Amino acid sequence: MQEFKVYTSSRSQLIDITHEVSCILSGYKAQDGIITVFTPHTTAAITINENADPAVCSDILSKLDRLIPPGEAFYRHLEGNSDSHLKSSLVGASEQILVKGGKLVLGTWQGIYFAEFDGPRTRKVYVDFIEK
Amino acid sequence: MQEFKVYTSSRSQLIDITHEVSCILSGYKAQDGIITVFTPHTTAAITINENADPAVCSDILSKLDRLIPPGEAFYRHLEGNSDSHLKSSLVGASEQILVKGGKLVLGTWQGIYFAEFDGPRTRKVYVDFIEK
Amino acid sequence: MQEFKVYTSSRSQLIDITHEVSCILSGYKAQDGIITVFTPHTTAAITINENADPAVCSDILSKLDRLIPPGEAFYRHLEGNSDSHLKSSLVGASEQILVKGGKLVLGTWQGIYFAEFDGPRTRKVYVDFIEK
Repeated sequence: MQEFKVYTSSRSQLIDITHEVSCILSGYKAQDGIITVFTPHTTAAITINENADPAVCSDILSKLDRLIPPGEAFYRHLEGNSDSHLKSSLVGASEQILVKGGKLVLGTWQGIYFAEFDGPRTRKVYVDFIEK
Repeated sequence: MQEFKVYTSSRSQLIDITHEVSCILSGYKAQDGIITVFTPHTTAAITINENADPAVCSDILSKLDRLIPPGEAFYRHLEGNSDSHLKSSLVGASEQILVKGGKLVLGTWQGIYFAEFDGPRTRKVYVDFIEK
Repeated sequence: MQEFKVYTSSRSQLIDITHEVSCILSGYKAQDGIITVFTPHTTAAITINENADPAVCSDILSKLDRLIPPGEAFYRHLEGNSDSHLKSSLVGASEQILVKGGKLVLGTWQGIYFAEFDGPRTRKVYVDFIEK
């Protein structure tokens, strides 16, 4: 299992980590199998989405913040990040990506993203590869 | 790794692909392990839900479209499908299903669905099996 | 593949199943790999979230019920649980957790939860481990 750090700079942020995951994959001298990308935090997530127009990431975060804004009156958790916890469960703590001939099998426009929902913070991502 | 195509006919649609995944699994002569079903598109997703009453699928899509409608004024991405990208990240690009004795381990009412959020289009699904 | 039962007592509920998953993992005498936790129900889900302050779980469920309440007039499915099916697809039927040295690799505050969206019911969870 390998790990790396992500440094986030906003409360809500999508950071492309495809390069970091590819580099770790190269280290495994892997051929075919599946790679898991997992974050050990409960106010963050991992997702796959478009890596071409940066407006896609900002639109995803804008809409998510309108649907699930911070600080609603009915929240009982005192840290002010109940919205972040819900976003984490909806987007999910991990992604699984197929690996073929040593390469991530991603679509043309797909990138792997670290999703920050309660930044800025220093975060960790765990990666492991299972061979077929 | 195997792949197949899905032809969607509406902007939002859930298409049962359980049969296609089962057929691919048969080809592996697999016994026990895990199968991954992944879509390489950023405005689509894979999910598991009820395969009995078709009203479940239409209700899921109706509610999702009310929560996250297309064309909201604050979107900056110019392709008009920012809602589709968010739906893709919330539902997720893949599902993992356990395999036992060569069969998918699904509940009585569970089917595997391709979720289209920006159709109609021709789409791809990738499938791979990891043996225990 | 192993399975265990979960007894839920409310319509919406998050139940910590980390201990049950750890016990099953011990039985595999596993070292390194990945464990899959899967629920075969279409109105429930598996998620990972905070296991410290119980208010986090209640806030997650409160907000989710406000976003996706039961019984909206446009639903066509007659069982009154269309909201539960959508919640199931958004949170997801399974989680994958890395295993290192025989232990679940979870963050300090992470627990594995069974998410009930149409209880109270008796539910099943399937668990299987794939070694590296």
